Amino acid sequence: MEKRTSANIKDVAALANVSTATVSRYLNGNLARMSTATAERVKDAIEKLKYVPNSAARQMITKSSQLVALIVANTDDYFSTELFKGISSILETSGYVATMFDSDSDIHREQSLLATVNRHTFDALIVQPFSSPAEITDIMRRDIPIVIVDRETPGSPWPQVVTNNFEAAREATTYFVDQGYTHFIVLTSELDAATNRRERYRGILAAASHVDVVEVSESSYNHKAVHQQLTTLLTASNERTVIFALKERWLLEFVPNLVLQGYLDNTRATATGFADTSTARRLEPRMKLISQDPFLLGASAAEVMVNELTGHPERNRPVVIVPAKFG
Amino acid sequence: MEKRTSANIKDVAALANVSTATVSRYLNGNLARMSTATAERVKDAIEKLKYVPNSAARQMITKSSQLVALIVANTDDYFSTELFKGISSILETSGYVATMFDSDSDIHREQSLLATVNRHTFDALIVQPFSSPAEITDIMRRDIPIVIVDRETPGSPWPQVVTNNFEAAREATTYFVDQGYTHFIVLTSELDAATNRRERYRGILAAASHVDVVEVSESSYNHKAVHQQLTTLLTASNERTVIFALKERWLLEFVPNLVLQGYLDNTRATATGFADTSTARRLEPRMKLISQDPFLLGASAAEVMVNELTGHPERNRPVVIVPAKFG
Repeated sequence: MEKRTSANIKDVAALANVSTATVSRYLNGNLARMSTATAERVKDAIEKLKYVPNSAARQMITKSSQLVALIVANTDDYFSTELFKGISSILETSGYVATMFDSDSDIHREQSLLATVNRHTFDALIVQPFSSPAEITDIMRRDIPIVIVDRETPGSPWPQVVTNNFEAAREATTYFVDQGYTHFIVLTSELDAATNRRERYRGILAAASHVDVVEVSESSYNHKAVHQQLTTLLTASNERTVIFALKERWLLEFVPNLVLQGYLDNTRATATGFADTSTARRLEPRMKLISQDPFLLGASAAEVMVNELTGHPERNRPVVIVPAKFG
Repeated sequence: MEKRTSANIKDVAALANVSTATVSRYLNGNLARMSTATAERVKDAIEKLKYVPNSAARQMITKSSQLVALIVANTDDYFSTELFKGISSILETSGYVATMFDSDSDIHREQSLLATVNRHTFDALIVQPFSSPAEITDIMRRDIPIVIVDRETPGSPWPQVVTNNFEAAREATTYFVDQGYTHFIVLTSELDAATNRRERYRGILAAASHVDVVEVSESSYNHKAVHQQLTTLLTASNERTVIFALKERWLLEFVPNLVLQGYLDNTRATATGFADTSTARRLEPRMKLISQDPFLLGASAAEVMVNELTGHPERNRPVVIVPAKFG
């Protein structure tokens, strides 16, 4: 419920005897470098004039909201939230504000959120998608800049900023093979649901011969049952075995018990995987992990987006690779 | 950049020979229970009519965006993201969509985000605030429903949904005192920055006599230095000692090394604190913890908000308490 008013920011600045920039700083809550007296004058002028910055009206004219929508797969993942922080840090230097939507790893939910973004006056969209480019194009009927992040999306008409999932997984697998590990247990969410998981799996297959897969459903899984599956596979052969988690969540969920119960001695068996938090490293300090840099991934996506928004779009829809680190 | 058009949803429904509800489902990406033929007809009609749902224009008329802004302290905290999921789950049943902003535990940043929410056509605001009610009122010049969540905010003119921080901390402390623990090391972020931390600290002081405090700066801290501080305090006295983390992050950060190095044997010394993830429980399965239910906290805040939005505001601005569990 916005109050209607005819006063504009110039009227407020004039009445308060300050610059419109000062009024704008006040409206943005940047009171840090503003004297209390000035802030008071601006506040009084705003109240006297019943001035309300009317974004809906302004958007009708400028068609700009300065808001950038981010749709991530799961806000519970440190990866998603660091992505958000990286995106925000860069966008804000260009006067944009990022806001995050959660698809909860559900493609229908993602498509409903895409429709919400399409219906509202967001200036741009950064998405970590489950949907295909065709599905996204069908829903996003407004012509706003889009950047794909994290999920390699073949045939995307938009720029992509992703990790070298295949290479990083192959490199790590090769390291363990050189160490004499021959058996790999891939611990993952549904492989078919996301391209980056499939790329990681392909990277492991490219370097290892004996590979088992344990798929865990993100929505419903039984910790005991999965733990049992893992210990059975760990004890089935005499080979030196690596549990390879394609997602940090599963590393945090299952490795502590395996360590406590003595299954992971870092000789007969060890664990590795994609993990970004300091918690994962402290579970078993000797464990080697693949770290992406989600903050950097987000910052890079935002840099591409700023170019799109300021009319300097990247040529021929590039795929920007942010390499992961192993060690 | 919205395309202008005069066609409306009725025109699309008529041309596609479907109900407006079907068009709406299509626009919302809910294609699950829709035949491909129907979806195709709606798509063709939308393209033929160059129909674009123009939210800015609609908002000028209905003054409603169906968007609810959530401002949390730190999206990296599982607490904040579960809060978001709880809020989303309830709001969506009433046709609202929640979107999350991150104040990054910075009061100036929070106030800048409040100004952003004020300037745009969000229908409502749920905030986990650092700012005082007076500061929030100064910035939020639009008359939209506001609900405070998680942070007890004395003198709030808005409903609050919070945890029983004082009681939960006192109850846990009393348990350990009864077990013969006499020395408590409070591990926390800056105590003065947030009311819920102060309430938890007060709860510990209400039940314990010998209490030390180790404050960790969220923005910049040295893991080794804090670890050193803790081990020094742990070995300073012969008393049975409890490390009491007021924030899960610090439990995850410092407990694993203390366990590995044998400082926490659950007899001479143990650890407890506020922690919600399964990871925290698996660090040391014998550890007793205080669990809030951030999802329930969010869902409860959303229930209060839906009442505000549907014109059934709670009487006399209630404080809804969602109790934490210890064990």
